[in-house]
Amino acid sequence: MADTLHAPSEDLHETLLDMGRRARAASAALSKAGQNGRTHAIFAMADALIAAQPAILAANQDDLDGGRAKGLTDAMMDRLALTPDRVAGIAASLRAVAELPDPVGSEIARWTVPSGLDIARVRTPLGVIGIIYEARPNVTADAAALCVRSGNAALLRAGSESLQSSIAIADALRAGLRKVGLPEDAVQLVQTKDRAAVGHMLTGLQGNLDVIVPRGGKSLVERVQAEARIPVIGHLEGLCHVYVDAAADPQMAIDITVNAKMRRTGICGSAETLLMDAKIADTLLPAIASALKDAGCTMVGDDAARAIFADMEVATEDDWRTEYLAPTISVRVVDGIDGAIEHITTYGTSHTECIITEDTAKAEKFFSDIDAGIIIHNASTQYADGGEFGMGAEIGIATGRIHARGPVGAEQLTIFKYVVRGTGQTRP
Amino acid sequence: MADTLHAPSEDLHETLLDMGRRARAASAALSKAGQNGRTHAIFAMADALIAAQPAILAANQDDLDGGRAKGLTDAMMDRLALTPDRVAGIAASLRAVAELPDPVGSEIARWTVPSGLDIARVRTPLGVIGIIYEARPNVTADAAALCVRSGNAALLRAGSESLQSSIAIADALRAGLRKVGLPEDAVQLVQTKDRAAVGHMLTGLQGNLDVIVPRGGKSLVERVQAEARIPVIGHLEGLCHVYVDAAADPQMAIDITVNAKMRRTGICGSAETLLMDAKIADTLLPAIASALKDAGCTMVGDDAARAIFADMEVATEDDWRTEYLAPTISVRVVDGIDGAIEHITTYGTSHTECIITEDTAKAEKFFSDIDAGIIIHNASTQYADGGEFGMGAEIGIATGRIHARGPVGAEQLTIFKYVVRGTGQTRP
Repeated sequence: MADTLHAPSEDLHETLLDMGRRARAASAALSKAGQNGRTHAIFAMADALIAAQPAILAANQDDLDGGRAKGLTDAMMDRLALTPDRVAGIAASLRAVAELPDPVGSEIARWTVPSGLDIARVRTPLGVIGIIYEARPNVTADAAALCVRSGNAALLRAGSESLQSSIAIADALRAGLRKVGLPEDAVQLVQTKDRAAVGHMLTGLQGNLDVIVPRGGKSLVERVQAEARIPVIGHLEGLCHVYVDAAADPQMAIDITVNAKMRRTGICGSAETLLMDAKIADTLLPAIASALKDAGCTMVGDDAARAIFADMEVATEDDWRTEYLAPTISVRVVDGIDGAIEHITTYGTSHTECIITEDTAKAEKFFSDIDAGIIIHNASTQYADGGEFGMGAEIGIATGRIHARGPVGAEQLTIFKYVVRGTGQTRP
Repeated sequence: MADTLHAPSEDLHETLLDMGRRARAASAALSKAGQNGRTHAIFAMADALIAAQPAILAANQDDLDGGRAKGLTDAMMDRLALTPDRVAGIAASLRAVAELPDPVGSEIARWTVPSGLDIARVRTPLGVIGIIYEARPNVTADAAALCVRSGNAALLRAGSESLQSSIAIADALRAGLRKVGLPEDAVQLVQTKDRAAVGHMLTGLQGNLDVIVPRGGKSLVERVQAEARIPVIGHLEGLCHVYVDAAADPQMAIDITVNAKMRRTGICGSAETLLMDAKIADTLLPAIASALKDAGCTMVGDDAARAIFADMEVATEDDWRTEYLAPTISVRVVDGIDGAIEHITTYGTSHTECIITEDTAKAEKFFSDIDAGIIIHNASTQYADGGEFGMGAEIGIATGRIHARGPVGAEQLTIFKYVVRGTGQTRP
């Protein structure tokens, strides 16, 4: 496997500027390759990944040795580890992205104005996307494929723990691009553990980096949001609430709350706070809390909740602001839907919010008054996922307010241009 | 007229943070007011503007006196001056915005996924929009109305030359909001000439300012883009090209080129460079250049162009990068559509690009390969305007790559949220 990625230079900033320029040139070629060209490219990337499996596993062994020496936890080691099956799984994900509809060139809207001009709003790639991520090596392939699907060049910055694996994966993806005659610089990986590289990317590389997508923990995302001079698409926290209304179906309230909290506790769409309508707290909270407890969840609650279900620690102000990412939930009794909306407006992080009620008018009020990327009526918050939304793949869940919110798939990695067809019009 | 806007405090940063907090609260009220509530508010703002005409004209006289003392040019003084007719015109613009369709709450897309979830993508306001602008006092009203139409609170920072007029206009708009029971803080004006106020806005006011729209000259926009820690929707330059292809209709080429350059030379959609296909430069350039000359346009050209039409100065590299905003055009002979695309890719600013040809395949290639907000076939670049696009009003033409490109109207001042309707789904 040829490694044509350049090594970190003495002058890291110059290296990154050069990567940006080459990414810009490659993005133009990717854009011109057309939908079929990009589809073939992603299939070729998948094939090349399989072909490079020995090299990838060897590189991964280096990362695992380093991780062991560094004292990574078992959970982190597991996330880092690649096996033949996992490499095959990454290739399968690439093929799934290759089969997604290509958003570039599709008409979002088209209309005619009184001057006779025929105006169309047409999707076009964002350009060059920088992705900064932490340990998991599969992100290298997933993010690169989603960028290629949407006609964008990817500039990847992997976590230091998975750097060798990521280099091997990026090499394979670039080999796939070369095979179909597309510029390998459409996928580039920053080959250094120097954290200064992130800082250089955040300045936008002299106009050659259009957007940054941070994928990682809160400290990474906070750093990116604080320092970035270019737009950021990312999510800071998923502090998701489940509000159980007086008009809830009791069994549905139990099932959804337990699923929203406990199905997987470490993902951003897991519920962190249960809000109980005071009107039914007495009757329904004991059943929900028992079910949570049986599922292995610990609870902290306000005075009203603890008066109903004793097996709860006292919830502090901090609890309402904590994304546990663990089998713990905070519980508060609120004054109906208005109390729930007020709590969520104060403590929510614009990720995913859920109401359980049989009263459609209340659901519509919740939809209207809650400001979040995803608002769910009568289903688990754990559906906050690009795959479950029918997007096929996602690069993350956005909690900002610009460009895209919620799951960010291929379509959200595009912008539009106006294509105007005239017949000789001059403006009076 | 009650002036409830607060005066600049000793601590400008604290003042601005407080304005941001109040804007955030007001934006929630504006969002909840519904489409009819916002429509009534904008009509009331127009009525209040008419009622405040004496106060506005008196304040404008202060600005005019200040401008005269400062030695503003006649053109600048004219842009600054308000008359009863101009105030009526601003009120009419507000009423036109009140009659625009309200984008908030409209469904962009809706689909069902295999789990049975019904997913809708629904427009929602951006939140709080900061607008930083230069001399023209009418922007205060236009920008505020477009923000209210789209459910957003506006934080306005007027140019110092028009500050007194802008304060009087903002007072009137706020009186209109009060009259319909909406929070006046949905429209706030920064009441200081201290340039540090801009710097504070660019930091995002602790999360209470979602996006900055700069409207002004290149130095303002460059400062905003360099310093902003929050997203910017704005345009830096409109270096628009007209490419006359070998297959152009000759008379159409003459008419469009003269109109694109000379209808109004000071606007961002005016053409700055004429690219002539080498195949027809000999026969068609003399006619186009003569027509431009007759219209009062001076020309600079490359050697090939000057060999055909002698009355041109030599074009330097700088000329290809210059937005003249004046009756001057640069002329270059290029090698067909590929040469035109290469020139535009090198020198264009992603604003508006035009091809004149009767060959539809070439037009489609131009649409596909040019990366700009607006790409026009067989019509003048001067159609680059929200009104001409049927948007009713615009806050500017965006040349960035994120969120919106081209004319930014009410719809582009929104983002979306996902509204998910379930029937009790828990995720396996």
